[in-house]
Amino acid sequence: MKAGATEEQIQHVVDRLHQFGLREHISRGEERTLIGAIGDERVLRSIPLEAVPGVEKVMAVLAPYKLASREFQSEDTVINVNGVEVGGKKVVVMAGPCAVESEEQITTIAEIVKGAGALMLRGGAFKPRTGPYSFQGLGDEGLRMLAAAKQKVGLPIITEVMSTEDIDLVAEFTDVFQIGARNMQNFMLLKGVGQTRKPVMLKRGMSATIEEFLLAAEYILSQGNLNVMLCERGIRTFETYTRNTLDINAVPVLKQLSHLPVIVDPSHGTGRRELVAPVSKAAIAAGADGLIIEVHHDPENSMTGDGAQSLMPEQFSELMKELQRLAEAIGRSM
Amino acid sequence: MKAGATEEQIQHVVDRLHQFGLREHISRGEERTLIGAIGDERVLRSIPLEAVPGVEKVMAVLAPYKLASREFQSEDTVINVNGVEVGGKKVVVMAGPCAVESEEQITTIAEIVKGAGALMLRGGAFKPRTGPYSFQGLGDEGLRMLAAAKQKVGLPIITEVMSTEDIDLVAEFTDVFQIGARNMQNFMLLKGVGQTRKPVMLKRGMSATIEEFLLAAEYILSQGNLNVMLCERGIRTFETYTRNTLDINAVPVLKQLSHLPVIVDPSHGTGRRELVAPVSKAAIAAGADGLIIEVHHDPENSMTGDGAQSLMPEQFSELMKELQRLAEAIGRSM
Amino acid sequence: MKAGATEEQIQHVVDRLHQFGLREHISRGEERTLIGAIGDERVLRSIPLEAVPGVEKVMAVLAPYKLASREFQSEDTVINVNGVEVGGKKVVVMAGPCAVESEEQITTIAEIVKGAGALMLRGGAFKPRTGPYSFQGLGDEGLRMLAAAKQKVGLPIITEVMSTEDIDLVAEFTDVFQIGARNMQNFMLLKGVGQTRKPVMLKRGMSATIEEFLLAAEYILSQGNLNVMLCERGIRTFETYTRNTLDINAVPVLKQLSHLPVIVDPSHGTGRRELVAPVSKAAIAAGADGLIIEVHHDPENSMTGDGAQSLMPEQFSELMKELQRLAEAIGRSM
Amino acid sequence: MKAGATEEQIQHVVDRLHQFGLREHISRGEERTLIGAIGDERVLRSIPLEAVPGVEKVMAVLAPYKLASREFQSEDTVINVNGVEVGGKKVVVMAGPCAVESEEQITTIAEIVKGAGALMLRGGAFKPRTGPYSFQGLGDEGLRMLAAAKQKVGLPIITEVMSTEDIDLVAEFTDVFQIGARNMQNFMLLKGVGQTRKPVMLKRGMSATIEEFLLAAEYILSQGNLNVMLCERGIRTFETYTRNTLDINAVPVLKQLSHLPVIVDPSHGTGRRELVAPVSKAAIAAGADGLIIEVHHDPENSMTGDGAQSLMPEQFSELMKELQRLAEAIGRSM
Repeated sequence: MKAGATEEQIQHVVDRLHQFGLREHISRGEERTLIGAIGDERVLRSIPLEAVPGVEKVMAVLAPYKLASREFQSEDTVINVNGVEVGGKKVVVMAGPCAVESEEQITTIAEIVKGAGALMLRGGAFKPRTGPYSFQGLGDEGLRMLAAAKQKVGLPIITEVMSTEDIDLVAEFTDVFQIGARNMQNFMLLKGVGQTRKPVMLKRGMSATIEEFLLAAEYILSQGNLNVMLCERGIRTFETYTRNTLDINAVPVLKQLSHLPVIVDPSHGTGRRELVAPVSKAAIAAGADGLIIEVHHDPENSMTGDGAQSLMPEQFSELMKELQRLAEAIGRSM
Repeated sequence: MKAGATEEQIQHVVDRLHQFGLREHISRGEERTLIGAIGDERVLRSIPLEAVPGVEKVMAVLAPYKLASREFQSEDTVINVNGVEVGGKKVVVMAGPCAVESEEQITTIAEIVKGAGALMLRGGAFKPRTGPYSFQGLGDEGLRMLAAAKQKVGLPIITEVMSTEDIDLVAEFTDVFQIGARNMQNFMLLKGVGQTRKPVMLKRGMSATIEEFLLAAEYILSQGNLNVMLCERGIRTFETYTRNTLDINAVPVLKQLSHLPVIVDPSHGTGRRELVAPVSKAAIAAGADGLIIEVHHDPENSMTGDGAQSLMPEQFSELMKELQRLAEAIGRSM
Repeated sequence: MKAGATEEQIQHVVDRLHQFGLREHISRGEERTLIGAIGDERVLRSIPLEAVPGVEKVMAVLAPYKLASREFQSEDTVINVNGVEVGGKKVVVMAGPCAVESEEQITTIAEIVKGAGALMLRGGAFKPRTGPYSFQGLGDEGLRMLAAAKQKVGLPIITEVMSTEDIDLVAEFTDVFQIGARNMQNFMLLKGVGQTRKPVMLKRGMSATIEEFLLAAEYILSQGNLNVMLCERGIRTFETYTRNTLDINAVPVLKQLSHLPVIVDPSHGTGRRELVAPVSKAAIAAGADGLIIEVHHDPENSMTGDGAQSLMPEQFSELMKELQRLAEAIGRSM
Repeated sequence: MKAGATEEQIQHVVDRLHQFGLREHISRGEERTLIGAIGDERVLRSIPLEAVPGVEKVMAVLAPYKLASREFQSEDTVINVNGVEVGGKKVVVMAGPCAVESEEQITTIAEIVKGAGALMLRGGAFKPRTGPYSFQGLGDEGLRMLAAAKQKVGLPIITEVMSTEDIDLVAEFTDVFQIGARNMQNFMLLKGVGQTRKPVMLKRGMSATIEEFLLAAEYILSQGNLNVMLCERGIRTFETYTRNTLDINAVPVLKQLSHLPVIVDPSHGTGRRELVAPVSKAAIAAGADGLIIEVHHDPENSMTGDGAQSLMPEQFSELMKELQRLAEAIGRSM
């Protein structure tokens, strides 16, 4: 309560708490009176207590998410994607081009990344682009190319879904839905994929706090889909040398607060090819369960302008060998 | 080009420019060679020149948006919303509750804000909420209540649309579509409202640069809908005392770079009732064409938890009088 | 306390509070136990309670500054600088070049800004520059030139002091010490100027929260120098179009939390000449007590590279007239 | 140049370039004219070209630092601190308490960290504290305690210097000067330690870009002191769960742009004890040359309030073993 809060104001807050099924605990300090709310304080999130006369600040004690929390489930969630386990002892690398450009392109790259040890194939058919005049992806044609590559090469697929209207279509082809950073708070889309039972990789929004990230996951979980992976892909800061600032702290934080698997995207997290290898190693060392890496055999001719962050095939193979040694040094495998 | 770039690399870049219909202009400095691209360099945005061997950095000279720019249209866009002109000499205030809660609530508030001089009624029927357990709005029922209030009180309506699937429904009732900050880069939604001819108020994303904001507007404009208003509603920074940091610089910047009307949201831009009045005045003084302000006659019992930033009716009336004087002092009217 | 905190751990925290002269107030919730500390909790800032076993989070209720707060002093501080009152009804404009370059330059500009209505002359003799190869100011020679201009033109002077070693020297010439943004947490320097009785204008650090800003002011106040003005000059955010993001919210926040005068620097806060006028107006409308503006009669030949944000004399005169009208509209004068 | 720049304006810019000993290279595009400056464009940093009529934007091609750059010196700088090599193959861990509290405390901790494999002892005698009422360190008494611990235990010392006036005093006792984050742009202090020949560990400012960080290092180098280590200690972002956001990208970026050794501070970079181990591992995996870690045998009774981020002795020993395995897996030693 504010410094000069009256007894009536204090009583009024207490009455409000009772209305919401909470009990109060009043603590009168020398300068301020503190009113503790006892019960499931999550209901406080949806009532505007700060609008009540005399109230200075409302401070939350409990996290606002539940199903996503370690307190709710202490053991790690392990998600089975066509036999590939994400969240277990094995570090899983997903790799592929930014966008699907042709059946030949995606199949070639699929073979390359599988050869180097990747366990899943990434590739965008629907591409969220900052401006309307950029290549927007091949759409359902791209999905069909992904499916062809999957059949030939034998890697499960992860691809982005951008709209509730496309969920059924994308579900036909993909093994894992990707929700992009720009859609992390597209709540309709979260609910939509939450109503399926297909695994979802949710990317952290560019300016989302860790709490908001877990709340976005909670949207999916609360619809009954428990197969959610969290992907740290860099946040927006004042630093301009890199495209984003990869939040390495978030990796152990997410592992502590949540039981969901944590994937790191060093390609978007740095935006520069020469930084992908060191930051991939850092992510594994920090405890990430997997990586999603852009690889292109001809980045200069890629269609998305993201070529500058794609690894060349030989760079990817080299990195996979280094990651192998690193994973073993910390008691994991690849 | 990088310090040691070879002649072959330079020639290769030149060949690439030719492929895209551009001409080159080579400038050999003492430490670096610079290659200027002559022609519509916007095509460069979609090709990954930074992935070409020998290239150090690609620097853009032109803005990547076109229809939104002052260079494309020098005179101000004025949008007519049922007789209310937005972007003209008159400063337009839109006001109302965060969310529609009942027909009585929205009608009561509509009368209050109209009485104080507001020219448009705001109120959310579909509410984007950070967590899945918060009140999500009354949906189409809320739209009907808005329509009832409009009929009784006679103010045009602005309300949020959150999903492409709801565009037709919302269009039936609203006079202006609001695209929320979290959806500023929901490109499917932007295209969807771009295909209508109804005015759109696009809110700046929490971590969107001014350039990205204008590119999001360009998505709508490029579909043929030229009735776009830009809304500055605060950006996310390290400061935690306020909910967001209202970017006052953005007001004159947007007016200079673009011909579109600029609205400011001091309620979300500060998150604190006691800051709404001073920041509203600042916005008008900086050149904003309008304001969108949360007003509630009973904030303590509002359903969204945003009550702490809603003005009380008498505060709103008082503010409107002050804004009137201010508008006149800078040669505008209200 | 953490979810599973034991009775021993709770008792241990209570014992710790007693050690520091505080009393406890225990509130046992369903999932967590809360321990309120009763007494002057400021002592908690300096003891590492979060390091105590079982403690989850320490939440501060009181502000950590005291002398700077409105609770300590409810009426506005008005600082008298050679007859110019800062913090009163009159809005005070300080203007001048970024750096003192010659006696002729500073005198010419002093006459210009005085003629347009400025009440104080700014100009740097010691210049903090990002790189070591840039012009670092004329030092004590520059101070002498300032003094000459003051004598001729009759405006009080404000100039930056960058080092404890220079305090005595600068004090000889200046009427107000300026502490630059980069030195906002140079605590030795704060203590140094705190030991004088000369007015100090403290600029907010580029990434300082409002709380840290007030704590920096507290350093000066706690040494006995009560003549402190706070200067908002823009914070660092992800936006790159402007040099800094002027935090307009901070103006009314500082006025509410503190009794100290608030000055705004639209030149550094925007970094672009064409934004200085609209943002100056916004600052006054938001309640600022003054402005500090860069003016140069020949910006192209200025020595600091900051010419791009300096107003030309006629622009400054024009702005002063507009500010006059604005100040009157909000019940102040100039 | 701006879209409508005249021939006179173009010629005027060319004349300006000639004045500064540069040559021009004019490239006339369809919408804009580009003027390339040939020669050492660093001089452009100090002249306000953006203030010249007709100029739209000045874009820098070269980095503004020189001595700190890889282009200036391609091989890694290795700094010898009393026999400990920083920047070589061996990863160097510096450890100790936040602040020196007593001779017994610092000696006890020195023995603990040495036993676990640390090669240098950290401990603050002069402490920069956000507020004036917090413990400010033991000053010269603290320095003497550090010296006593050094003598007994045999580890070189690193400790902070906060003021030019203290440089000589601190130099008497310390082996490495630490410049804290808040003083990264205290240019007087940078010049001061630059005039000694003692190694300096420069911490990155909370909101400093990588370029500004290297420019701050350049201040020291330009005075003739080439023994500079760069320390990434977390930057300020919107995320509040952690005290700072450790910028892991900065580690490989600094190694690429500069030849100076890179140290990481996971204690301040996270602010939470439980994150220190995973982030330490990430730093080594990303290529850091060393770590500086807070260790305290009795964090609950530490005097600085930073206890929450200090490792307990057994945690530190455990971490050192893990780091050993990791270092070997990436071809380094400890």
